[in-house]
Amino acid sequence: MLLSIPRSEFKERQQKFVKEMHKEECDGAFIFAVADIFYLTGFHFHPTERPIGMLVDPNGDFHLFVPALEHEHTEEYAVVDFVHSYPEYPGVTHPMDYFKKVMLKYGFEGKTIGYDATGYGSSQGYRGPTVTSLIDAKEFKSLAGIIEQMRFIKSNAEIELIKESCRWGNLAHRLLQKYSKAGSSEIEITSRASNEATMAMIETLGPEYKPHGQTAFAIFRGQIGAESAFPHAVTQNAILSTGDTLVTGAASSVFGYTSELERVMFVEEYTKEQEKYFKHMYEAQEVAFNAIKPGAPTSSVEKAVQEYFKSEGVFELTQHHTGHAIGILGHEAPFFDLGDQTIMKPGMVFTVEPGLYVRGLGGFRHSDTVLVTENGMEMLTYYPRDIDSLICL
Amino acid sequence: MLLSIPRSEFKERQQKFVKEMHKEECDGAFIFAVADIFYLTGFHFHPTERPIGMLVDPNGDFHLFVPALEHEHTEEYAVVDFVHSYPEYPGVTHPMDYFKKVMLKYGFEGKTIGYDATGYGSSQGYRGPTVTSLIDAKEFKSLAGIIEQMRFIKSNAEIELIKESCRWGNLAHRLLQKYSKAGSSEIEITSRASNEATMAMIETLGPEYKPHGQTAFAIFRGQIGAESAFPHAVTQNAILSTGDTLVTGAASSVFGYTSELERVMFVEEYTKEQEKYFKHMYEAQEVAFNAIKPGAPTSSVEKAVQEYFKSEGVFELTQHHTGHAIGILGHEAPFFDLGDQTIMKPGMVFTVEPGLYVRGLGGFRHSDTVLVTENGMEMLTYYPRDIDSLICL
Repeated sequence: MLLSIPRSEFKERQQKFVKEMHKEECDGAFIFAVADIFYLTGFHFHPTERPIGMLVDPNGDFHLFVPALEHEHTEEYAVVDFVHSYPEYPGVTHPMDYFKKVMLKYGFEGKTIGYDATGYGSSQGYRGPTVTSLIDAKEFKSLAGIIEQMRFIKSNAEIELIKESCRWGNLAHRLLQKYSKAGSSEIEITSRASNEATMAMIETLGPEYKPHGQTAFAIFRGQIGAESAFPHAVTQNAILSTGDTLVTGAASSVFGYTSELERVMFVEEYTKEQEKYFKHMYEAQEVAFNAIKPGAPTSSVEKAVQEYFKSEGVFELTQHHTGHAIGILGHEAPFFDLGDQTIMKPGMVFTVEPGLYVRGLGGFRHSDTVLVTENGMEMLTYYPRDIDSLICL
Repeated sequence: MLLSIPRSEFKERQQKFVKEMHKEECDGAFIFAVADIFYLTGFHFHPTERPIGMLVDPNGDFHLFVPALEHEHTEEYAVVDFVHSYPEYPGVTHPMDYFKKVMLKYGFEGKTIGYDATGYGSSQGYRGPTVTSLIDAKEFKSLAGIIEQMRFIKSNAEIELIKESCRWGNLAHRLLQKYSKAGSSEIEITSRASNEATMAMIETLGPEYKPHGQTAFAIFRGQIGAESAFPHAVTQNAILSTGDTLVTGAASSVFGYTSELERVMFVEEYTKEQEKYFKHMYEAQEVAFNAIKPGAPTSSVEKAVQEYFKSEGVFELTQHHTGHAIGILGHEAPFFDLGDQTIMKPGMVFTVEPGLYVRGLGGFRHSDTVLVTENGMEMLTYYPRDIDSLICL
């Protein structure tokens, strides 16, 4: 059972990034995006007002730049050649002055330097200069999107972790359905289901399991009854009633990798009208599954879904596109969207979640996580999708 | 029992922001920081690849710019004059083209326009132009930090919400201590304590309670035994052993407001060495409490703590400053740091958390949330701080 990305894979990713950096004619680079730093170094951290950045020097060595309180943690867990730290933020000397010293010491001056953002950007009280104002470079060149693109195609190890994530999301969702009864409150149900699934998860996986994110959980995000017509609502602590449309979400993090499982459910019973929208949503998801294949653009999946919804006269009830890639982040590029022409390739992992939203009645959206294969796609989530299986009794 | 910020207070905040904007000679502004948008409009959302922004037009009206899927949710919950939406990201037409239309329609062209960031900056696959490239302004002017400064002094309503947060963090911590036994795993303990405290919280507060963040929780973040010497470690799913030093954290969100409670605890027993560092940490916190008073700079608190640690010969075991402001974000400016000269004023809320870190032995850090008053300070967290109360039996 694989529960982490092997060290050798981080090294391979780093070698690939150096190649990409050289293709862009950069001698070195600095990177601030949390997900991209984790992808390249395995260093998982919570961003705060204390800046954290990654540097790739002109020798191709990888550096992490962290506050003192992260120094030992970084040395123990990160796959990098050098760890540098500064005492504190704001500190008597600004962290970026230390960052500058590292850049000077490792030969960035006068070079072509790539970056994903010109400076550190936390909102938690951080203020500081851009890196581009710190040293003299031949050129500063944006590499925005390059690591994100490296993340498009998942490795076998990544797919294993995502599958493990699906397994525990599935259990959390099973318990959520079990505890969803009229008169119960949203948080009571989600807390109990999430807690019990988490317990089973850690007992099964043992101490080798590192979440690097949320352990197993299942939630409603306020999507209960008429409120479920708000597709991205937030927890409202609502009470379930008979006949409510519910829209759920369940997942778990396994070494930082996640998945997405969402279902429409009904409390005890449903009306003909609820059934009608459920069926359209269900069929739209089938249409999307059939459109997923390597070689086609991601937009073709959205196009097929829109054509289906239009032919059924319900297109005006949509509020978002069909899905997004997923992996280290819950939402990643590319997207199943008319405006996205990325060509699907084996190893890409997407959510498939066409939705219909009917004011006063509810939202109708399943989401499944799927893997693009050589011939089409493989479902990674496996919770029942049919209406009979989704009544909460 | 106050469980939300009154609508009138959001209106007052907006009027104050317009005044601040005019002081900076700006006719209008656009703002992207999630916490600042919530502070001014009460609109709580999870940032994704779909840009969300706030606009203040030259008439002083407040606008939210959201994706279609957030439109109705925004109209229902946000305190603003206008809600605008775009179909989708990436979409056939980029969201920023819609943003531009809103700016043109509401008279931003040719004006002096303030901003907190030149463009939307989510890392979840978003790419887009800066707003400053979209329209012709007389001038674009950074207002970075202005809303953050408005947030420095908490209102009575904000203090009430933070106190309510402390109450449920305290319960979660009480349960965490109760379940912390040798042989138990980190996640088992934290899951159980967090779940039970959450249940009590929602049963007590009822459906009026909106978390806008995490319900009651208590965690270790991997700070168990020798690993507790890493001050900002992440969950490691470790097993507790007799004699372990534990460093905890507990809080809850109440309408988006949070608090911080952290304790050093010992599993069953402690050595003379553990006791020594505990006592230094305890005394350092006392030193900080005594240094907190209106009119003094925040740096004076850090200075007092450093002097204490130096006099005891343990200063080299520190890894971070004494504390930070807290409210909507878990970490906010200003800081108890030598580099921060902000003058303390009644209504400011800070964490007080001087720490010592001893490799191989553990970390020693309590954190309490305190309110600056007219005469000194008031403790908002109230969990016992003495060593005898912090043994897990």
